[in-house]
Amino acid sequence: MPPRRFVFGRTEDAVHPDTMRAALSEFIATAIFVFAAEGSVLSIGKLYKDTSTGGGLMLVAVAQALAFFVAVAVGFNISGGHVNPAVTFGALIGGHISVIRAVYYWIAQLLGAIVACLLLRITTGGMRPLGFAVGPGIGELQALLLEIVMTFGLVYTFFATAIDPKRGYLGTIAPLAIGFILGANILAGGPFDGAAMNPARAFGPALVGWRWKNHWIYWVGPLIGSGIAGVLYEFVMIPTETPHTHQPLAPEDY
Amino acid sequence: MPPRRFVFGRTEDAVHPDTMRAALSEFIATAIFVFAAEGSVLSIGKLYKDTSTGGGLMLVAVAQALAFFVAVAVGFNISGGHVNPAVTFGALIGGHISVIRAVYYWIAQLLGAIVACLLLRITTGGMRPLGFAVGPGIGELQALLLEIVMTFGLVYTFFATAIDPKRGYLGTIAPLAIGFILGANILAGGPFDGAAMNPARAFGPALVGWRWKNHWIYWVGPLIGSGIAGVLYEFVMIPTETPHTHQPLAPEDY
Amino acid sequence: MPPRRFVFGRTEDAVHPDTMRAALSEFIATAIFVFAAEGSVLSIGKLYKDTSTGGGLMLVAVAQALAFFVAVAVGFNISGGHVNPAVTFGALIGGHISVIRAVYYWIAQLLGAIVACLLLRITTGGMRPLGFAVGPGIGELQALLLEIVMTFGLVYTFFATAIDPKRGYLGTIAPLAIGFILGANILAGGPFDGAAMNPARAFGPALVGWRWKNHWIYWVGPLIGSGIAGVLYEFVMIPTETPHTHQPLAPEDY
Amino acid sequence: MPPRRFVFGRTEDAVHPDTMRAALSEFIATAIFVFAAEGSVLSIGKLYKDTSTGGGLMLVAVAQALAFFVAVAVGFNISGGHVNPAVTFGALIGGHISVIRAVYYWIAQLLGAIVACLLLRITTGGMRPLGFAVGPGIGELQALLLEIVMTFGLVYTFFATAIDPKRGYLGTIAPLAIGFILGANILAGGPFDGAAMNPARAFGPALVGWRWKNHWIYWVGPLIGSGIAGVLYEFVMIPTETPHTHQPLAPEDY
Repeated sequence: MPPRRFVFGRTEDAVHPDTMRAALSEFIATAIFVFAAEGSVLSIGKLYKDTSTGGGLMLVAVAQALAFFVAVAVGFNISGGHVNPAVTFGALIGGHISVIRAVYYWIAQLLGAIVACLLLRITTGGMRPLGFAVGPGIGELQALLLEIVMTFGLVYTFFATAIDPKRGYLGTIAPLAIGFILGANILAGGPFDGAAMNPARAFGPALVGWRWKNHWIYWVGPLIGSGIAGVLYEFVMIPTETPHTHQPLAPEDY
Repeated sequence: MPPRRFVFGRTEDAVHPDTMRAALSEFIATAIFVFAAEGSVLSIGKLYKDTSTGGGLMLVAVAQALAFFVAVAVGFNISGGHVNPAVTFGALIGGHISVIRAVYYWIAQLLGAIVACLLLRITTGGMRPLGFAVGPGIGELQALLLEIVMTFGLVYTFFATAIDPKRGYLGTIAPLAIGFILGANILAGGPFDGAAMNPARAFGPALVGWRWKNHWIYWVGPLIGSGIAGVLYEFVMIPTETPHTHQPLAPEDY
Repeated sequence: MPPRRFVFGRTEDAVHPDTMRAALSEFIATAIFVFAAEGSVLSIGKLYKDTSTGGGLMLVAVAQALAFFVAVAVGFNISGGHVNPAVTFGALIGGHISVIRAVYYWIAQLLGAIVACLLLRITTGGMRPLGFAVGPGIGELQALLLEIVMTFGLVYTFFATAIDPKRGYLGTIAPLAIGFILGANILAGGPFDGAAMNPARAFGPALVGWRWKNHWIYWVGPLIGSGIAGVLYEFVMIPTETPHTHQPLAPEDY
Repeated sequence: MPPRRFVFGRTEDAVHPDTMRAALSEFIATAIFVFAAEGSVLSIGKLYKDTSTGGGLMLVAVAQALAFFVAVAVGFNISGGHVNPAVTFGALIGGHISVIRAVYYWIAQLLGAIVACLLLRITTGGMRPLGFAVGPGIGELQALLLEIVMTFGLVYTFFATAIDPKRGYLGTIAPLAIGFILGANILAGGPFDGAAMNPARAFGPALVGWRWKNHWIYWVGPLIGSGIAGVLYEFVMIPTETPHTHQPLAPEDY
């Protein structure tokens, strides 16, 4: 496969059935993820009218870890399992998808998040999605840095387990690693800024619940974090020389 | 393997040892799942007399995620690991099993759920299984839509990780994905309608605990959601042309 | 490999380095498991002086699910990853190990559990291990049946994922399935009889904490449940004719 | 591959791009782990001002289990996924890395932990990292023994699943086993000494939060436990004669 770095994409790419199918895969996977993710927030709200407890944080983090793992897994072999505009941005920066395909993915991911939030609003008897906002005592720049750092970890994990040609059969558990770093980071960052790491995850509830406070943070932070991870992994961690082995079986070289 | 879409099944299929063994596998796997699933509800009831808490929801969701993963895994190579009449219905709609085999599976799954609930009733000193009912403030049609949406996610995951010929070595973690989307959806939908996504899971406790309120929802919803997922995945997501590769190793085509 | 059903074992087997290494593997794996399992009970006791809460049950179940998965994994390719005298009994009934090897395993497992409890007693400042007892309102026969049913599920899972020649690459996640069914069953059965499913797990704390009430249940129940699972799986679920395929790749035959 | 036991390392090894890349991998992986690990402690502190509850212990243990799994996974094929100076020490004792490479790893791991704690301090509005200290009623020698025992379990797991030439396709889930034994041991040992099992995990918060009480325990304990595990596994569990099989597919020999 020749490198396709920063390719704008060909016209036939845009109308090819595989591209359509991949965009549909991203739409469904993002809807599955956001339904369980934002649904778990409403679920806690239904039980307690207060989601700011350790138990609530745990429940929301576990729901998102499990659902993101599954969403990445179901899209893995069709669309690459991005389920996140920031991951798609990192893949674009690293040269793994064309600009046209990235635009399709972004539209599909945002639509998936919106549909999931609309379905939640109907099935919960009209509950208004909460989405994300910066916690008390935290400044906007601090929250921005938090989103950058946490999304860096997420996208670095994506590259190391799903993209790296040396990943070997670690690729089998890649969706698990990608889902679980999301969960771990939510447990760490949840009380400070909600821990989105995903513009689609933030945009769906913002639109359907119409809450736009601090919203820019959840776009700018993840895109910066993902871009840094993509550049670092692609140009530093993946060696430019041919890998010395094609039997990606085990960590022999340490 | 020639396509066997909507085959009624041959007479010898019905009496073949493999069919019997597969039905027995579904019986045992469903019993293992329902025992832990409904048992965790009784377990919370034993501790608190109240299962409508965040901690109770978490416990019940984790028990079902773990137990459904295991039940799918133990049946995976014998019966396909359905453990759910709705999944069997989706596999039938997608042309992956014959009608006769589906009927065997349905009977086995329902019997497994009943036996599990009877064993729970005996071993817990006579506690009456709770099963499922629509939560306060939620209408029956909202609960129906909720079951449709959540079962769609479950069966879509089943097709993407366990059926899709492009699944590659993602098949290794298929049971984990199938179990974990169940858990994530329970965390999201639990307080609204209990989140069954599985008629056998609902039928066992309803019969043994004799509680039939809203019961039709837990049959109609999952079957509709599964049917939609089966048709969509089989006829849209799986390409009709020959897959371009037979080395299902990694997401190269994105 | 010719079948070795009910072989007593040869003398050289008893002194072969591989047998010694396998017994040592069982000793260490059981110690790792029981340390975290009983340690999590003491940990809750250190925080609350009361372990009969939903949160305590959850913590103890998760600790045991994770630790049993790991213990099975570390022993998997050396000793088969039994970590449980009941599993060894099932493997003996199914003809997968000789009597001499089983006796070595049993001694190693019991010693591992005892050493783990002694280390816990020292490092926790003398806390007395709790072990298992039948819960309030539950009769001894009910607890016995509960242990039989739950251990059946555990050992059936062991056979389906780790022994069955048709298991294919499901074997990769076998330790995970075996650990997680333990966790799910503890969430279901914990408040009723503690949910041991493992005589070594019960014996270590009983000896070091010197609590013998109801102790026989945690030997008789698991051994019966394991024996039933071993006979059923070996003689019914594993076909006696040659499997039709040697490419254990995916559930093609359903 | 000839054995490289106790090799000091060649000069070119120290400046080779692969060594640099491996050290960078350890730096990033340790930063990802410590960010989520110590971040979850601060997160609980933000919600409650008290982390000594069962719910807090559960949250911190799950965050660390998930994050350590991911950190080991992302480094697995580049640096071996140590993410822990004690694991590196065990690998050095077992002869799997050179002294020069080990020194690089140690520096990278400590820097990663420090950077993670600095980022946490900034993004949380100045919260002071907590790190580790011995719990009430526990002596320093008891805590030392606890760290030795728990780190032994962690490093034994590392050798059994990631190093052992007989590990077969168990290597696929090695990062999961290594992460989950950390989580299980935290659930058992958390209330007694915090359960570090990792000098870098303890050093970062100690430096940035400037808390040095009992700090030596979290260096001496893990290094002793890791050394014992490395020697035992390398020289007893891995047979010195040629393994009888090179198809490490399944536990045939039990």
